[in-house]
Amino acid sequence: MKPSSGPASLTPLSGSGPADPPRFLREIADWCEQNNIVFDNYGSGNLVETFEKKIASLLDFPAARFMPSGTLAQLAALKVWAAESNCPHFGMHPTSHLEIHEEHAYAHLYNLRRSFVGPAKSALLAEHILAIDEKMSALLIELPAREIGGQLPSWDELEKIKATAHKKGIKLHLDGARLWETKPFYNREYSEICAGFDSVYVSFYKGIGALPGAMLLGSVDFIAKATLWQRRAGGTLQTLGPQIASATMLLDKSLRRMPAYFNRMQQVVHNLSGIKALRFFPELPQVNMVHVYLPFRAEIANKVRAEIEEQYSIKMFGNAMSFDIPEESYFELTVGENLLGLSDSEVHLIFSYLIETGIRHSNQQ
Amino acid sequence: MKPSSGPASLTPLSGSGPADPPRFLREIADWCEQNNIVFDNYGSGNLVETFEKKIASLLDFPAARFMPSGTLAQLAALKVWAAESNCPHFGMHPTSHLEIHEEHAYAHLYNLRRSFVGPAKSALLAEHILAIDEKMSALLIELPAREIGGQLPSWDELEKIKATAHKKGIKLHLDGARLWETKPFYNREYSEICAGFDSVYVSFYKGIGALPGAMLLGSVDFIAKATLWQRRAGGTLQTLGPQIASATMLLDKSLRRMPAYFNRMQQVVHNLSGIKALRFFPELPQVNMVHVYLPFRAEIANKVRAEIEEQYSIKMFGNAMSFDIPEESYFELTVGENLLGLSDSEVHLIFSYLIETGIRHSNQQ
Repeated sequence: MKPSSGPASLTPLSGSGPADPPRFLREIADWCEQNNIVFDNYGSGNLVETFEKKIASLLDFPAARFMPSGTLAQLAALKVWAAESNCPHFGMHPTSHLEIHEEHAYAHLYNLRRSFVGPAKSALLAEHILAIDEKMSALLIELPAREIGGQLPSWDELEKIKATAHKKGIKLHLDGARLWETKPFYNREYSEICAGFDSVYVSFYKGIGALPGAMLLGSVDFIAKATLWQRRAGGTLQTLGPQIASATMLLDKSLRRMPAYFNRMQQVVHNLSGIKALRFFPELPQVNMVHVYLPFRAEIANKVRAEIEEQYSIKMFGNAMSFDIPEESYFELTVGENLLGLSDSEVHLIFSYLIETGIRHSNQQ
Repeated sequence: MKPSSGPASLTPLSGSGPADPPRFLREIADWCEQNNIVFDNYGSGNLVETFEKKIASLLDFPAARFMPSGTLAQLAALKVWAAESNCPHFGMHPTSHLEIHEEHAYAHLYNLRRSFVGPAKSALLAEHILAIDEKMSALLIELPAREIGGQLPSWDELEKIKATAHKKGIKLHLDGARLWETKPFYNREYSEICAGFDSVYVSFYKGIGALPGAMLLGSVDFIAKATLWQRRAGGTLQTLGPQIASATMLLDKSLRRMPAYFNRMQQVVHNLSGIKALRFFPELPQVNMVHVYLPFRAEIANKVRAEIEEQYSIKMFGNAMSFDIPEESYFELTVGENLLGLSDSEVHLIFSYLIETGIRHSNQQ
């Protein structure tokens, strides 16, 4: 573990960063030079079209479109499905990104209405779809479901989900913000995981580590219609060249790392199982992320986090939050290169420090 | 003039490009290194906030927000003004970008209605605002008006426009996609040109030559509200670091070039005045752009353009279009570094070739 030298050299526990801007830009520049890259012009050109074909082939969809953000891509998808069925009503889990992080754009901007499907703390299951008793144009399913610790339905359950939605005539849209991370759990090809979904969104800046960018996949007709909404939302830019180049450059390499991240997640949870006051949700992680629950208030967790940054130069998390019990707090842990670079004993040390110091602070209050 | 070596080495007549991706990315990387740049995190951080303050100061507005595109920035602005006055109705010139290039997002996505103000072929004047006989939340004015050859109202007329809109209680929004290019004509500070507008959008990838990016300016309250719409439209990205860095890096240098571009535009028009069949609109350019009218059909113009590319390695324009007379065509000419690098005789040569060959083809049909 590096000696402390102030916040500038903090290493986050989660993820694979932080990326150093000049180094990252030079890597993209070198890759562009080696591959004679010409940036796209408003979404047209060899670079973007080749990348779209690559992802379409990997996920086995007829068409794909690179878009600047997942928010844009998913709302465009839901808008297309709503128009197709002449029904502005869609379903999603109560913890969906669309409900929590997008200022209710689906309603205020896209003029859509939602119903929640499934309970807030566990994954959306086929039985919840079966219970839908109103007309819906589409159902959005997030795999893995980030806000509930990265939970995934079992493979059999996923098959049931697909069959049930299909039988009900509801279009299935996959929120695949972290789809790349699901392969080690399912041990299936991405095309098999996506089969049965009518549209899919994937992201390139989270697990892949590229500059921000997203891809929407579906039929040729669906993508043509979604592309109109991309323009309307202001997402058809003169070029997204650096974003597309960085995603193309990193995809294969990053996908190969996913099994190692999932294994390390399982090791970390096993390694920390002796710290009884620590709780993981889900207890057995299904991807390379998990929620870590602490037996004290969020403000105490954040205070101890700052101490750990000072002592160990490691940023354990951004901000601890409380869920429904104020005496508890939690943070999200995502395994990337950073956690692969720490030994089990180093990891155990900082988690022990966090728990012991947090409990001591808590008892003193 | 370089010898012909196929389309790969074509130099556009307009603009200052094409930018070579690896070289451009390395310039940004070097600049980031020299300035210890850390990319923004969802629009927060020193890089973006410093740049926002710089533009806010230059244009004399209390607040500014970097956004990925002008489409997003301007629709967000109009949506805020509509909510403020509880009136979904705004005005704009019939050739506005919002009418022509955005798939009518103002209606389909933002649920706004428009009225046209001013005649299609000339600039919007105070008298047209005076004639408005319906309630409007805001009026969008583009300076210069791109689709009519970059026309600008005179300074006195601009003052009247501002006063008339103010008297009518209509918010004035400035579409400043090419605002940077107006300073040589008005010979005023940017803050003087923008004074009296309630909100302003400026762009960084056209005259400035940065990666795509836009800035919206207004009051603190206005920008806070517009930022909500930015998120809803999917324009709040994990980082816009390369875009912001490139704009910060290039702004001052590019602004200093604007007088040279305007002078060169005037020289070019003067130099070509002997070619009688050539017509410029406006006759005396007011910025570094103009529409070039040709006395033959667009398909002939495009055919001769390809010949010129083959013979002189210069791409005179992208695509000639017809306006309302099919026997005429026109293209947009914008002066940047490329036209500064050509001598008057070289410019005269290719324009003579275009006109003479086009007329010959036309007579043969």
